[in-house]
Amino acid sequence: MAAAIVGGKSVGVALLGCGVVGSGVVKILHEQADLLRQRTGIDFQLRHVVVRDPAKIRQGVNLAVHTDAERAIDDPQTDIVIELIGGVERAGQLVERALKLGKPVVTANKSLLASRGSELFALARQHNTCIAFEASCAGGIPIIGALVNGLVANRIDALVGIVNGTCNFILTKMTRNGWTYAHALAEAQKEGFAEADPTMDVSGRDAAQKLAILAALAFNVRINEGDIQTEGIDKLHAADIKFAGELGYVIKLLAVAQRLGSKIFLGVHPILVRRDDVLAEVSGSFNAVSVYGNALGHALFYGRGAGQMPTASAVVADLANVALGVIPTAFAKMVHFADLPPASILPPRELISRHYLRLMARDEPGVLAQVTKILGEKRISLSAILQHEASDGQHVPVVITTHQAPQGALRDAVAAIDQLSAIQKPTVFLRILEEPKEFAGD
Amino acid sequence: MAAAIVGGKSVGVALLGCGVVGSGVVKILHEQADLLRQRTGIDFQLRHVVVRDPAKIRQGVNLAVHTDAERAIDDPQTDIVIELIGGVERAGQLVERALKLGKPVVTANKSLLASRGSELFALARQHNTCIAFEASCAGGIPIIGALVNGLVANRIDALVGIVNGTCNFILTKMTRNGWTYAHALAEAQKEGFAEADPTMDVSGRDAAQKLAILAALAFNVRINEGDIQTEGIDKLHAADIKFAGELGYVIKLLAVAQRLGSKIFLGVHPILVRRDDVLAEVSGSFNAVSVYGNALGHALFYGRGAGQMPTASAVVADLANVALGVIPTAFAKMVHFADLPPASILPPRELISRHYLRLMARDEPGVLAQVTKILGEKRISLSAILQHEASDGQHVPVVITTHQAPQGALRDAVAAIDQLSAIQKPTVFLRILEEPKEFAGD
Repeated sequence: MAAAIVGGKSVGVALLGCGVVGSGVVKILHEQADLLRQRTGIDFQLRHVVVRDPAKIRQGVNLAVHTDAERAIDDPQTDIVIELIGGVERAGQLVERALKLGKPVVTANKSLLASRGSELFALARQHNTCIAFEASCAGGIPIIGALVNGLVANRIDALVGIVNGTCNFILTKMTRNGWTYAHALAEAQKEGFAEADPTMDVSGRDAAQKLAILAALAFNVRINEGDIQTEGIDKLHAADIKFAGELGYVIKLLAVAQRLGSKIFLGVHPILVRRDDVLAEVSGSFNAVSVYGNALGHALFYGRGAGQMPTASAVVADLANVALGVIPTAFAKMVHFADLPPASILPPRELISRHYLRLMARDEPGVLAQVTKILGEKRISLSAILQHEASDGQHVPVVITTHQAPQGALRDAVAAIDQLSAIQKPTVFLRILEEPKEFAGD
Repeated sequence: MAAAIVGGKSVGVALLGCGVVGSGVVKILHEQADLLRQRTGIDFQLRHVVVRDPAKIRQGVNLAVHTDAERAIDDPQTDIVIELIGGVERAGQLVERALKLGKPVVTANKSLLASRGSELFALARQHNTCIAFEASCAGGIPIIGALVNGLVANRIDALVGIVNGTCNFILTKMTRNGWTYAHALAEAQKEGFAEADPTMDVSGRDAAQKLAILAALAFNVRINEGDIQTEGIDKLHAADIKFAGELGYVIKLLAVAQRLGSKIFLGVHPILVRRDDVLAEVSGSFNAVSVYGNALGHALFYGRGAGQMPTASAVVADLANVALGVIPTAFAKMVHFADLPPASILPPRELISRHYLRLMARDEPGVLAQVTKILGEKRISLSAILQHEASDGQHVPVVITTHQAPQGALRDAVAAIDQLSAIQKPTVFLRILEEPKEFAGD
């Protein structure tokens, strides 16, 4: 099938789903038809636009829209299927149907890949076709292509990404305007950067699904969403953003994958980033992915991680690269999800890192001595302490940054600290990012 | 030929030139053989390492090294040729020889592409093979792949890059340490970031050659080096870096390609960049390329732009993607240099931009009135003026930033200003970068 497409001048496309991103795809195929023909020699024919409600008016989509996805996929003039329905069940059925007919699928559906990736990739290979999924991670940034093709000669040692624009928008507002989480979330919803139910984004789950895909490509292992220690921004306090700022840090929701010996640590957390780190400059709904390769050193890919046109840009790029034969060729030869060994995951307690702690202590003598004694017993050494005068004369926030220590020792120390009678509330602790060393090993 | 390679498990490689980058390629092929096999299913066999002086000891190269490039290319077991000799004449002969035998060529040679690109690309297509050149621009950053594949659905509106690590290293030292150009250059030479004869780098010519390649891919037009208005950093004064800093700017050597109506402006210049622009954060020998696509918006690609292993990373990626058939497939179908129409270049005088001027005026009444009168007559309006007290009581540097005006009007104004009896030295003028508007067009 792929070979037939490569040879052809006209390529038939079925678009399943025509919401925000789908309309963007229609717009690009319409407005940039000349550009695409000039660059690829191909005329893309949008033969089907499948929607749930054909009565709904879609701006710029002047095509015969219908509701019969099966007919669209089965049409012999459909060469490539774009799946933008989202969700797992129905989308999965349709992707399967297309692959079984040997038709390549372009998808932005990270949930589908996170839950059924291995199986669908194997199915694609079995039917001598492919799945393209550049739009599933970091919107328009061509990070999948970079990992699969551009960095192929590198053993990847770490991947650190800001991959959820909603969270980054909220954190940027909290940091710059001093807003609370609730205020910033409401603003994000008003401006269209967060959904009515923001759970997938703010819980870190969306970032974890993207990390599962990116880390699988970077480390060539199979990763399950459950392998990823995940914490969102929904419990983050404005106070910690303020204190982090006083210490020279910005808090970002980071998706982190690190190679540590033969194991891999995978986590999504709010993390303190030094203000002069390039990632600290990534603001609003922008995304960025830092990659550390053993030959390349540090590289960073930055751009709009969501939104209609940036995501449509990635979908149409996949469409073009599938039609050109570039992705089918790579897919057939390269080892993707299908045959990957499972990842050997570093238990989070073994992760060695610097940390930030905020204790809410009663303003009485001896508390700090008790706290530092506990940290000392767990062999955690302190880097900085920040204590402001109590505003109510009762509770004082004490901020401590530590040197490197295993997360397990830190968790044990925090549990012991929270047992102290002078401690009022559960202690907040966050990781501090240390930039992976370039050219450290190999 | 490409098809035969794609099918094979073992791919024979001839490496022409084994200097710094070549040794890095040998190192990756040796140390990452397992990784490359795992990712691509291919065993790369380094069959020939061709050098000028076989007696020279090369660390980590335990292979039969010889001096006969023709034999290496002609060997039927050589499937792909890597050209790392540099220069135009001999390298050009050898690339031609390989292409005529239908053997794909991987090269990092931007001079060769700048002077003979069109012809060699046509030759490659004629012989059903390809040229891969990721390593020719921005070292290990996979920017060629991003432009050719990742951003294929975008009309590119602007490309702004820091693409010469030597200049960026020198400017970073001048900015952060307050050094003179000569001092910073000497340090760059000592640390191996500048050659004994640094002309190619500091004159901006290296950056212009890279811009010719990047802009051709971005705008799908043929570009000659002569189309690019080029000015290096060798005449830059420490004083202007200091004044720019006082105004909130950093000076960077930028390679700029901008679409303006039906024309394209191409220039390499020291340019003032706002301190909060991501490009201002790109320091030392790092490179970065900002791309503005009409769908994607702003994207940035950042990483090490030179050096042994980063460049070798790009060379081996090209090797793998040629062997996998990814690059040959794209090359055969996509319009590259070979058939591009010539660019319609915007005359630099018509470029509308903000500017920075530094006048050296005699400290006497009425000078500023004369200067502002001339600027007013040319319809150039002022944005800011900075005048310090004269240290010697005689010459005062007067720094002026302007609002947008055509460069031609500015040049005429500067010529008139330099005629004033109170002006001591030729007035310095530099462009101020304005971030291209995202999603400005369609």
